[in-house]
Amino acid sequence: MNPRLASISPSMIREINGKKRATSIDLGLGEPTLRPAMEPLQRALDWVREHGSPYSPNAGLDALREAVARHHAYPGLDDASQVGITVGSQEALSVAILSLCDPTKDEVLVVEPAYPLYAKLCELFGVRVRAVALDAADAFAPSADKVLAALSPSTRVLVIASPSNPTGRVWPATELRQLADGLAARGGAPTYIVSDEVYRELYFTAAPPASPAAFWPHTVVVGSISKSCALTGLRIGWFIAPRAAAPQLHKAHQFLVSSTNTFGQRAAIELFSRPELMTAQRLEYLPRLDMMESILYERAVAHVPIDGAFYCFARLEGPLAHDSLRFCLALLDQHDVVTIPGIAFGAEGWARLSFVGDRDQIGEGARRFAAFCGKPSIVRTR
Amino acid sequence: MNPRLASISPSMIREINGKKRATSIDLGLGEPTLRPAMEPLQRALDWVREHGSPYSPNAGLDALREAVARHHAYPGLDDASQVGITVGSQEALSVAILSLCDPTKDEVLVVEPAYPLYAKLCELFGVRVRAVALDAADAFAPSADKVLAALSPSTRVLVIASPSNPTGRVWPATELRQLADGLAARGGAPTYIVSDEVYRELYFTAAPPASPAAFWPHTVVVGSISKSCALTGLRIGWFIAPRAAAPQLHKAHQFLVSSTNTFGQRAAIELFSRPELMTAQRLEYLPRLDMMESILYERAVAHVPIDGAFYCFARLEGPLAHDSLRFCLALLDQHDVVTIPGIAFGAEGWARLSFVGDRDQIGEGARRFAAFCGKPSIVRTR
Repeated sequence: MNPRLASISPSMIREINGKKRATSIDLGLGEPTLRPAMEPLQRALDWVREHGSPYSPNAGLDALREAVARHHAYPGLDDASQVGITVGSQEALSVAILSLCDPTKDEVLVVEPAYPLYAKLCELFGVRVRAVALDAADAFAPSADKVLAALSPSTRVLVIASPSNPTGRVWPATELRQLADGLAARGGAPTYIVSDEVYRELYFTAAPPASPAAFWPHTVVVGSISKSCALTGLRIGWFIAPRAAAPQLHKAHQFLVSSTNTFGQRAAIELFSRPELMTAQRLEYLPRLDMMESILYERAVAHVPIDGAFYCFARLEGPLAHDSLRFCLALLDQHDVVTIPGIAFGAEGWARLSFVGDRDQIGEGARRFAAFCGKPSIVRTR
Repeated sequence: MNPRLASISPSMIREINGKKRATSIDLGLGEPTLRPAMEPLQRALDWVREHGSPYSPNAGLDALREAVARHHAYPGLDDASQVGITVGSQEALSVAILSLCDPTKDEVLVVEPAYPLYAKLCELFGVRVRAVALDAADAFAPSADKVLAALSPSTRVLVIASPSNPTGRVWPATELRQLADGLAARGGAPTYIVSDEVYRELYFTAAPPASPAAFWPHTVVVGSISKSCALTGLRIGWFIAPRAAAPQLHKAHQFLVSSTNTFGQRAAIELFSRPELMTAQRLEYLPRLDMMESILYERAVAHVPIDGAFYCFARLEGPLAHDSLRFCLALLDQHDVVTIPGIAFGAEGWARLSFVGDRDQIGEGARRFAAFCGKPSIVRTR
């Protein structure tokens, strides 16, 4: 048996979800409950009826790779040959970590709070990993200074997510530019940024999120249609890699899984051909976000500004505030609301509340959360 | 960059396929050209229309895991909890190698001729790999004695394929029993057999192929619906692992790709519920096999007995017979027939001819191949 695999700690998110009851209000969800547009799927099946279900090329269908490159239009990442179609963004992350790092000497730096998978993939592939924490007192605002100060000479990959899971924060363009300038000022082999953009289409800021790819040529972008189009189960994601790195990532993907499912790729081609479908569901989250924020505001529960994704990262209060795992387990046990402890993402004293369900459930869940923080309504309900 | 990935040699199969022309007769194919049954796919889409496209559980949909366990009904491997649904059998192989081996001390033994991926996955994950060759003079007949003699104290995994790609040979039950007895007689931690059964439903022997799982409890079975049901592009495969190993394999799968596509899993559930669909396409290969064998027999081209899969492993003759890569490149260049050199599978002096296309193409391809071996027709055509 592989001891590296055995030593990876079990998932806290899974532990919490395993205790969910049929009656529970689920603010732990990491996927949309909306229904996907059916027309692209129907067209994909029509294609299969006509052509069968053959392998796609290892790197994906050309038309989809072109659509992904065109949709992002990042400088230096705009050629279809640089795109690989993967089994969701998760396989793209596996491929990136496996390809970009030499386990004998390289190190990965993860910006926390962060999706726990990044560090676990490093452990799995035997790559050293460190974390740099954004400042809770500054509501986890992305900070180029903090990240640059944490780099070591062996940092070969820097992982950032924008919009972030769990904080919902978006990296401002000014910080990304400063980050790129700082990376450029270092000597030696370049440090790759792995930019997790899986929530890219779900933003609540005035403008869409910027990508580090706009400022740093050594950026590997990771994305998918899973979250934006309610197609998590289709398992269609991608990487977009600089020319020097792309062949290595294609090779790793080819070995790990051979290729991604053809039906899903056909559906994705249809989606990209209708840009309105790529962004339609963003608007569905606005009333949900509004419900979550209005309840927390009314009850004076502090939370991180929600720039994007579908998560509210809220500060715990009360006797269990210092132990987010115990807090979330007790909230579930006593008040039947699922939330995810901040410590799962490297941030103690916080919890992630998702607003993907229906508004009533979001509202009731947020009320119970606030009450458990010792913050009952300050407005008497009639 | 990961130097292990960079050092893996490029695929010879890919090199040959890259030179294919529009006019070429393609006997290099590794996937069916038959069309899949549409009803399971239509029902899967109906399910998505009703339920959306959510993630499946990481290990796969329960109903599919149960169907896979029931379909195989291997002793000690018959519980759904031991089944993981993967991105084709290829991801199951990735997961098995990554999970079962400790890169610091374990070794994998591959029985050649073999699909080149096995060794490449070992290289990718930093696991030592050795090969044991079956005897060409004995038409690559599976031999427990040969394999047992090649084991070393650090052999932790033994990879066998039955029916074999590229030879089409099936391991007889007597040899599998002897192999199991020999493994049992060794001391120390058990050696796992990874049994690649991706061609399991495509057999031309009187009875279906036996599995080492019937004789050796430490067997990890790998399979898929790709080849048997003409659904390569659906990317639905599985592993079935002993109780002691299954949790590790589930964990590796969860990290690499999270989960397999839900649409494909729903279609697979439909397929397993209609056993006639699981085996229907086997019969379609009989006339194709017959065409291939009759041409080669008529022209006295030696080939391995075809027990299963859809490949004919034929012995080269003529001036290039000692260099199968040059032989296959010249055959393609001069006579426009794609075949795969035996050396790609570790067997020099042979080539793999697949019989998945239509009968006329198979016949014409086999004729040109025979002629290139210096074996024109011995029966004058009118």
